[in-house]
Amino acid sequence: MAIVNNITNVRGIKCWGAHTGIKSLRRDLAIIYSEKPAVVSATFTKNKIQAHPIKITKEHIKDGRAQAIVINSGNANACNGPEGFEAAQLMARTTAEKLKLQPEDVLVASTGIIGEAFPTDKVLEGIQDSIPNLSSDSKAGSLAANAILTTDTFAKEGHVSFIIDGIKINIGAMAKGSGMIHPNMGTMLSFAVTDLDITQELLDKAFKEVVNDTFNMITVDGDTSTNDTAILMANGMAGNKKIESESDPHYALFKKELYKITAHLAELIISDGEGATKVIEYLVTGAENKDSARKLVRSISTSVLVKTALFGRDSNWGRIICAAGNAPIEEDLQFDKMDLYIGNEKQSTQILKGGEVIPHDKLFLKKLLRDANISIHLELNQGKAEAKGWGTDLSTDYVLFNSVYTT
Amino acid sequence: MAIVNNITNVRGIKCWGAHTGIKSLRRDLAIIYSEKPAVVSATFTKNKIQAHPIKITKEHIKDGRAQAIVINSGNANACNGPEGFEAAQLMARTTAEKLKLQPEDVLVASTGIIGEAFPTDKVLEGIQDSIPNLSSDSKAGSLAANAILTTDTFAKEGHVSFIIDGIKINIGAMAKGSGMIHPNMGTMLSFAVTDLDITQELLDKAFKEVVNDTFNMITVDGDTSTNDTAILMANGMAGNKKIESESDPHYALFKKELYKITAHLAELIISDGEGATKVIEYLVTGAENKDSARKLVRSISTSVLVKTALFGRDSNWGRIICAAGNAPIEEDLQFDKMDLYIGNEKQSTQILKGGEVIPHDKLFLKKLLRDANISIHLELNQGKAEAKGWGTDLSTDYVLFNSVYTT
Repeated sequence: MAIVNNITNVRGIKCWGAHTGIKSLRRDLAIIYSEKPAVVSATFTKNKIQAHPIKITKEHIKDGRAQAIVINSGNANACNGPEGFEAAQLMARTTAEKLKLQPEDVLVASTGIIGEAFPTDKVLEGIQDSIPNLSSDSKAGSLAANAILTTDTFAKEGHVSFIIDGIKINIGAMAKGSGMIHPNMGTMLSFAVTDLDITQELLDKAFKEVVNDTFNMITVDGDTSTNDTAILMANGMAGNKKIESESDPHYALFKKELYKITAHLAELIISDGEGATKVIEYLVTGAENKDSARKLVRSISTSVLVKTALFGRDSNWGRIICAAGNAPIEEDLQFDKMDLYIGNEKQSTQILKGGEVIPHDKLFLKKLLRDANISIHLELNQGKAEAKGWGTDLSTDYVLFNSVYTT
Repeated sequence: MAIVNNITNVRGIKCWGAHTGIKSLRRDLAIIYSEKPAVVSATFTKNKIQAHPIKITKEHIKDGRAQAIVINSGNANACNGPEGFEAAQLMARTTAEKLKLQPEDVLVASTGIIGEAFPTDKVLEGIQDSIPNLSSDSKAGSLAANAILTTDTFAKEGHVSFIIDGIKINIGAMAKGSGMIHPNMGTMLSFAVTDLDITQELLDKAFKEVVNDTFNMITVDGDTSTNDTAILMANGMAGNKKIESESDPHYALFKKELYKITAHLAELIISDGEGATKVIEYLVTGAENKDSARKLVRSISTSVLVKTALFGRDSNWGRIICAAGNAPIEEDLQFDKMDLYIGNEKQSTQILKGGEVIPHDKLFLKKLLRDANISIHLELNQGKAEAKGWGTDLSTDYVLFNSVYTT
């Protein structure tokens, strides 16, 4: 795969990752800056309780433009009163002042503990100290990617490039995962930048469709946090002929590459899921429509019974079918049409054909399920739509992590 | 509480519990018979994949009348081809023949492993052998209550009585729980009988509302099975003046008592949940409407993060608020209006008032959370509607149970 390096491979992008003291030891502040104004698209948590920085960022992207993102980890700046809202405003304002931008051109994101007073002074001081360090060196990109982590065990970053009219176009991205070792932490953040020249409308369309097929199809524990945010900025500095139409073949190419790097980050997030021993790829095909296929994948991938069975290396097809039956879809499911395949990345075993159990070697299948990468494919044979998603197993370690760390 | 004895306290009810050999040692067949025809109400799983006996029972209750119920445990008779459907039909037919009823007057339910061939011969033989043993002795009631169990650790039965016009009215009930130690098992079954004289329409109305507030508000692992069934028969043998109007005060009295015994069974089911160390009662008040209140309770009680926190005796209010925010409701949630109380049956501690943390003794709260019965009360202060529900914690034992038992 062409995924190497990070956001600093993108023309005009500078960044930094600093330690301000929210966390005792690890870096906790990241700034991403584009030398030229960029068009922007963003998606946010659907949780009804939203963190303060999300309120600010939603305001600031209304004009479809942004030039910097400031992110802290260690404190979610959520459920902590009006002071928290003011702190998020001040983060944007301070960053803007130092970078000679309008506050509306700065987006804000936070991740960490919910409901704690925000250490505003430390963070503002950290912002001021960080601006002079902004750099397009790849090390600066990695420092930024590290500074947004909470309980993640490794930084998640990537880069893809492709050619349009002889010009190399770059997309760089970084993300943090939804592991929830520490109480009240569990945010998924992703920040991507590209030097492509594209209209805001098309950037928005591509990003939202890609997020729907990637970040919205992964699950560690089924909960979405108060802080989930994914942002994509495009600063046009590649100098390509601006993409202005969906029928422009370069639009499809961009979307394909954007999917590639976003799916890559999604898989990295899942593989770093708390106490996870396996990454499971779920594929539902033959559904009546895309929305149903998505809901079926989510219902199976979030089923505690399916997740515990997979932790136990158990090819427990009844639980998979039962979880599919619990999906909140309109149409009926016809068990006697279903085919089911369970396996790993390399090979799979057919379990059901038209609702009948195919004789199979259970011991062999159990061996396949020792693998860290499992794939489950449910063919409904009811229509043409399909969806893919990723999940983890549910281990005893997950429960321990999530119960012994106390407030 | 007035809950003692079982379904045999109800006039005209005879039953039996037998061992047919589906299971190696424990009883696996129950029959409930009313000497006189009864009006009936039933609710079923919302899972899109439904077991064969559910299809039969749905047909047989269309006329609103029934006189017997035949139930087996050990095999769910689901996802096992047309032979399974035929077996469910034969269970009704054989029971009807021996009791000199129409097959349409016999309802069928099954619980056990999904996707296995049904041992039709054993079960039909068991039915024929059992009919002569039908008895109104309370021991027969307990044998029946035991015969429907799968991974439950104890039988769940109860009885309430109340007076209408000087006549003692009885409601007796038995249930099995949703523990899921063994793969593919997890059905909730409940069978209740009363000697009240009431129209089918009012019986149906009362039962569905009560089930909505009780069985539909408990959760062990969030999944509903292919076989969930709850049935209530009323044979009118008490001889009271028939309840024909919702405004009859005796209707309200009946519904109150029906709620009492059904909530009791719901709590017994939860307390026997797999690997559960705690029963948690969730109360959401001040919601804009009842449906939202219900969804909020379900979102909190099924949150894996809330459940693991409670296993760890952690008063982790951020997870509770975050789970509430994930409820699929229409209206906005206003964090700065929320009050939150966490405690046990005897005392509770206020954690939030109007979205602000109330200083509280965390060590004292941790002591409260050692209790086996926890209560969590979220007051939204947005409206007047409320809902109550029950759930378990999520323990390391739960994961072990559900992963090490393999097919």
